[in-house]
Amino acid sequence: MGVIHRYKGDFDWEGVELGRYPPEKNMRGVTVRWLIGPEEKAPHFALRYFEVEPGGWTSLDQHAHDHGVVVMRGQGRVRLGDEEFDIVPNDVVYVPGNEVHQFRNTGDGPFGFFCVIPAL
Amino acid sequence: MGVIHRYKGDFDWEGVELGRYPPEKNMRGVTVRWLIGPEEKAPHFALRYFEVEPGGWTSLDQHAHDHGVVVMRGQGRVRLGDEEFDIVPNDVVYVPGNEVHQFRNTGDGPFGFFCVIPAL
Repeated sequence: MGVIHRYKGDFDWEGVELGRYPPEKNMRGVTVRWLIGPEEKAPHFALRYFEVEPGGWTSLDQHAHDHGVVVMRGQGRVRLGDEEFDIVPNDVVYVPGNEVHQFRNTGDGPFGFFCVIPAL
Repeated sequence: MGVIHRYKGDFDWEGVELGRYPPEKNMRGVTVRWLIGPEEKAPHFALRYFEVEPGGWTSLDQHAHDHGVVVMRGQGRVRLGDEEFDIVPNDVVYVPGNEVHQFRNTGDGPFGFFCVIPAL
């Protein structure tokens, strides 16, 4: 049977827990909500909503799996390899496998985005 | 190298073509934009934006692959197996493999949603 996570407003959903990254993950001010993934028994991909507080960033990552990102709120900057690009709501970013990447909040409010990954 | 599809407004993106489904696909008034997929050389998943005009619907489908959906605009109804559910912007729907499903526009304006699939 399918699953519906009803939107509650302010980028929060019914039946979805809020996760925070501990400092040892080399992130600052990042939360994650797994909207589709192991809990939904999704075998092929996962969909998460990340939110970065003002001044925050995700870890500088490089790994084999790819990311599909859609910005949902705020203003940010993505590093892709040696370049950086400003991104705003509804911009779509594809991060191929093994590409160095990082997301930073460059605005005054929350910076939020959906992120798709293959099931790991 | 990564790919960024800049948002142009009105659910249209730079570097993304508009596709329409022909009537023989058993859809009415449905367009699709492939945001991440073969063009972006994404090996594991695809992200598409579908839009259904007022009175329109997607085909009544049942297939092995699963769908991850996030509503972006308008009002719609999703059939999951023998049940139907009204859905609104930012609601998240997971359609498991082999589940009968269909999306209908139940509002007066465009009904749009992101849809993730595994690479086929």
